Amino acid sequence: MHYEIRELKDHVGEIVDVRGWLYNRRGSGKILFLQVRDGTGTVQAVMGKNDVSEAEFNIGKGLGNESSVIVTAEVKTEPRSPIGVELHVKKLNVLQDVKDYPIQISEDVPNIDWLLDRRHLWVRSKVPHAILKVRSEVVQAIREFYYQRGFVLYDAPIFTPASCEGVSTLFEVPYFDEKAYLTQSGQLYGETGAMAFGKVVVFGPTFRAEKSKTRRHLTEFWMVEPEVAFLELDGIMDLAEDQVRYVVTRALDKCKEELKILERDTSILERVAERFPRVSYGEMQGVLQKLKADFAASGDEKLVKLSGDILKNGLGDDLGAADETAVGIHYKRPVMIHRYPSEVKAFYMKRDPADPNFVLCVDVIAPEGVGEVIGGGQRADDLKYLEEQVIKHKIPPETIDWYLDLRRFGSVPHGGFGMGVERCVQWITGCEHVRETIPFPRTIYRTKP
Amino acid sequence: MHYEIRELKDHVGEIVDVRGWLYNRRGSGKILFLQVRDGTGTVQAVMGKNDVSEAEFNIGKGLGNESSVIVTAEVKTEPRSPIGVELHVKKLNVLQDVKDYPIQISEDVPNIDWLLDRRHLWVRSKVPHAILKVRSEVVQAIREFYYQRGFVLYDAPIFTPASCEGVSTLFEVPYFDEKAYLTQSGQLYGETGAMAFGKVVVFGPTFRAEKSKTRRHLTEFWMVEPEVAFLELDGIMDLAEDQVRYVVTRALDKCKEELKILERDTSILERVAERFPRVSYGEMQGVLQKLKADFAASGDEKLVKLSGDILKNGLGDDLGAADETAVGIHYKRPVMIHRYPSEVKAFYMKRDPADPNFVLCVDVIAPEGVGEVIGGGQRADDLKYLEEQVIKHKIPPETIDWYLDLRRFGSVPHGGFGMGVERCVQWITGCEHVRETIPFPRTIYRTKP
Repeated sequence: MHYEIRELKDHVGEIVDVRGWLYNRRGSGKILFLQVRDGTGTVQAVMGKNDVSEAEFNIGKGLGNESSVIVTAEVKTEPRSPIGVELHVKKLNVLQDVKDYPIQISEDVPNIDWLLDRRHLWVRSKVPHAILKVRSEVVQAIREFYYQRGFVLYDAPIFTPASCEGVSTLFEVPYFDEKAYLTQSGQLYGETGAMAFGKVVVFGPTFRAEKSKTRRHLTEFWMVEPEVAFLELDGIMDLAEDQVRYVVTRALDKCKEELKILERDTSILERVAERFPRVSYGEMQGVLQKLKADFAASGDEKLVKLSGDILKNGLGDDLGAADETAVGIHYKRPVMIHRYPSEVKAFYMKRDPADPNFVLCVDVIAPEGVGEVIGGGQRADDLKYLEEQVIKHKIPPETIDWYLDLRRFGSVPHGGFGMGVERCVQWITGCEHVRETIPFPRTIYRTKP
Repeated sequence: MHYEIRELKDHVGEIVDVRGWLYNRRGSGKILFLQVRDGTGTVQAVMGKNDVSEAEFNIGKGLGNESSVIVTAEVKTEPRSPIGVELHVKKLNVLQDVKDYPIQISEDVPNIDWLLDRRHLWVRSKVPHAILKVRSEVVQAIREFYYQRGFVLYDAPIFTPASCEGVSTLFEVPYFDEKAYLTQSGQLYGETGAMAFGKVVVFGPTFRAEKSKTRRHLTEFWMVEPEVAFLELDGIMDLAEDQVRYVVTRALDKCKEELKILERDTSILERVAERFPRVSYGEMQGVLQKLKADFAASGDEKLVKLSGDILKNGLGDDLGAADETAVGIHYKRPVMIHRYPSEVKAFYMKRDPADPNFVLCVDVIAPEGVGEVIGGGQRADDLKYLEEQVIKHKIPPETIDWYLDLRRFGSVPHGGFGMGVERCVQWITGCEHVRETIPFPRTIYRTKP
């Protein structure tokens, strides 16, 4: 009977088949310890010289990593095993004996570009394997969060007629005899769905021709974008907070093993249980000025260095990476910064009636240096205002007229946000570079394998 | 207190706020019947002349469709209502009075291209609304089906270095100073995941530069592609059958209202509960010859016409649309056709050891004229064989060498399939054209809105 390794603890005493790959091997003379993985876990298979035929033992002795095998063995309790059991081999069936698997199990990480060239194999190694399992859980958690709340999934198109986030990062595609552009965000389409279904969620890949080579950017990344009719800024912040809390809590619950493999200190992640501070952009400028001074005076080399970059963009500008890092260090949990100056935000944002120099937007800043994971807010719902913005931002009217129809035919207050899946996974897993959070990352220099 | 329309039946006797849009209106002199929709349902709001102020009544009298409103009203039981309740209006708050909504509620369907030009509004109408709700449920059902069975979600890249389904339908994208291609299928990437995680599912948009204008084709469509290590053809057929049964059963259960709106006769859909016939390509050739003769002799005009196109491609060729339609008429449930001739199938398919002229593949044909919804099978796992195929199919070796690594380093029997989400939704909803099954369809002539 075949079982997955994750199921073995329920089959102690039984003779089972385990099908997988040799992850590692030690021992030699009279006893071999084969680490076998099957994608659901890793188990130690103990093979004594007298347990199997001499031929099988000799094959086992020379077996290379990533050889494919079917092991017939008895499941025995083993308290020292992370999965509580080990295998005592009765029969070793080698499907392919691999001699020269290129990726070594070792503490020294080779060049990441070398590994990314071998991403199709590297995903088998413990760290990328754990990160991608967290990604899988995070995406499912997001899907269930919205489904349970009655949101309708509303897939936005990938081919679009125009930009909504700035033409400098648009990918243009020859489309038969015309041109099309790869979507940068599904938001404008999501708004059409909110007017039809009340609450929708767009969730798909988005594209930015990012020339920057920072550890935060990919040219292709997945974004979840809820959009809700009759929802105003406070409600949008509630939704964003609930969603982040749900996803992080679920990953902490379901991905314990993976986070252990990743040696992730989860103490800050666990603070999502607390209410996220909601700080206006105006208030945050004061906080940052204070942090700049405090960090400079702290004597901590890292903080002193960081302080030099805080508010580098200047008071009144958009926040920079250092500002976001400082916010995370200070609050030690996600922070919602709302009501930015209108000039640093997109044309479709609604002005704050209390002070029209600001817009009813919100960014969620994740701590631990990850930075912005969510951006969103309330959308301008007045036709005349949007028409002015279209002119002011020099948006070709024929590309946006359909969007203005939403303000001609039953306009209502509404809003939503976008969360980058990779940034979220990066925070949860604590990995250095957003490249590691997607099976096949695409950057300015990489479209392979 | 605000409630969604779907919740109203639990609030009989209460005064509630309903926020939404005027779907339709009748009455005039002393009483108005306002059909209000909010995306979760439609409710009739009855407004007597004496229930509200004269100004409110007069506004209501002239209110145009798709005006945005907040209705304050008492919820009353109404057995004739499809949702069991209606509203008795106390106050009508009109956010925007719309006078010239372009889409009429009418039996006569205008030109579908005219409607697709207004897709951003058309999604509010009953039929597209119902179809897209079914789509949302279908996608969630698929996600849960795989999640519950321990599959890891493994997103394949959209930017790829080369083709895997034929270069004639590739979209090429200028990628900084290089070129990239939009993915036609995530399968080859899914195979890397199967070797790392055992069972993975790829689920994302795929692209084909289809010049054909048939009702079955889109340039952009969503595909779910499970891939499993150590799974052979019979197991692949089991998985495909289980998945189709799960998804259709769930849609029948959760989308009763939508299928009613669509006037869908569900009798054939309900037959997914029965085992799907598994017929080899060789056996099917005989069945088709018999059907050709039977249909020609039937006297039924439609069948006689169809019979002329059966086996039009010739014996031994791939099946055509008429063949698939005939199969559906004959079996009246999904049919699995396995073991096609190798020359009509892709290079990566495994030959049948019992007869190497055939490959271990399976197509699932949906009845009611929908045709192929699933294609898949067991993958060739022998390095030498695949190397020969690469040469035979003139695939540039540098674009496929990474894939051959999967046969160099721990090759195992494995397989999977791809199901087009839009075809599946087309079948469940019974809609004529696959265009209607996605919020913003993309075809050779359409990238807007």
